[in-house]
Amino acid sequence: MPSLKGYSQELEYSYTPGVFPSLELMRVKPEKAMRLLLSERAQGEGVEKLRQVCRENGVREEIADKALRRISGKDNCFAAVVFEKWQAELEADGPHVVLHHPMDEGNLGTIQRTLLGLGIKDIAIIRPAADPFDPRVVRATMGALFSLRVKQYDSFDSYRAEYPRHALYPFMLDGSVMLEEATRQVQMPYALVFGNEGSGLPAEFAQMGQAVRIPHSNEIDSLNLSIAVGIGAYAFVHAAK
Amino acid sequence: MPSLKGYSQELEYSYTPGVFPSLELMRVKPEKAMRLLLSERAQGEGVEKLRQVCRENGVREEIADKALRRISGKDNCFAAVVFEKWQAELEADGPHVVLHHPMDEGNLGTIQRTLLGLGIKDIAIIRPAADPFDPRVVRATMGALFSLRVKQYDSFDSYRAEYPRHALYPFMLDGSVMLEEATRQVQMPYALVFGNEGSGLPAEFAQMGQAVRIPHSNEIDSLNLSIAVGIGAYAFVHAAK
Repeated sequence: MPSLKGYSQELEYSYTPGVFPSLELMRVKPEKAMRLLLSERAQGEGVEKLRQVCRENGVREEIADKALRRISGKDNCFAAVVFEKWQAELEADGPHVVLHHPMDEGNLGTIQRTLLGLGIKDIAIIRPAADPFDPRVVRATMGALFSLRVKQYDSFDSYRAEYPRHALYPFMLDGSVMLEEATRQVQMPYALVFGNEGSGLPAEFAQMGQAVRIPHSNEIDSLNLSIAVGIGAYAFVHAAK
Repeated sequence: MPSLKGYSQELEYSYTPGVFPSLELMRVKPEKAMRLLLSERAQGEGVEKLRQVCRENGVREEIADKALRRISGKDNCFAAVVFEKWQAELEADGPHVVLHHPMDEGNLGTIQRTLLGLGIKDIAIIRPAADPFDPRVVRATMGALFSLRVKQYDSFDSYRAEYPRHALYPFMLDGSVMLEEATRQVQMPYALVFGNEGSGLPAEFAQMGQAVRIPHSNEIDSLNLSIAVGIGAYAFVHAAK
């Protein structure tokens, strides 16, 4: 492997900043691990467990304080695993969440973690968007990324061409049906579609499926994206049981 | 007014970093505004609107680039209003949300904004906790703080002594009743109680009311606090209609 670079989208590898996401990678996708980076100051039970599981999987370790600072942008990141990125395929029959131009790394990480918790494992991301392999996202997912199938698309149409059968539920501020009503009769399989943090979904999405509104008072402009995804996914998952 | 300090909890005033939260303060609680701080570089429609509404309310403006940097910790904060803090009283008959030791400023801000959107306006915060008047929280609420009644307590018991009638619903990872079931028959008025981001609620809360669990897969340890509050509050608000 060449000398390690700060992360960028073009690279074929990324990093798991921190002991916890590194352990998650080794638990779920050890075959993707390429190298263990440790700080000179790394110590503790978690670190020892990580070293052990890396040894068991033939993943070489090295002291790399400079690289850890560069990757994490922080001074207190004591371990990271370099891993090979992959392109997942979504499951054809399960529920999907489609994120249209999500731009905030923290939001994207929280959303992935929430969806794994709620049992939705297939996520389509429509570019331009935050990069799901960005170490900041990986950290915010706390490793959830490794248990999900996340696929990136250059347009909504290319997602749709692959999965034409899913009933679309675009979440929109002016959606014609309230969430409670929409979940009374859910068509399977479904795809919940959420727009950008600032601008939401373009108006034409209202014609593509059953536009849903999460009711909120007019004292706020909109709910935070990750909160909207949490509420919407919870309601659909439990309605569809 | 003495010369402006960086924010600390002991001060009797705080700041609204940014044009949007400043406009919200002037819309909802203009009587609390003490002074308008502007950057030399401040310009645009929002800034002019803010200057106008401050003039109309007799709030003096001054150029204060250094203070803006100190308050916001950023170089791109062009306006802020200095405002007098207050202690709210909660409404005795409405639904409450009780946050027990929430420590993250961003989370606390997002939660306030979410609850205002869902129509729960009364929030008790049990210390130690992030300070709801901290400018970082004010920014994260996007001004929602000004439309809410937020009261801080030194213990859960002192909250409970003031509002003994509310039916308590502590949200716990091992809650004995699932959220869906809990919302089938909601006792009014209710208080939803959420614990700290890392450690949740102490075990004794299970005895104080109907402990509720938001079901999630064992692939994650817990939902993010702000997501849990969003899902829980949404479910209760809509069940109670």
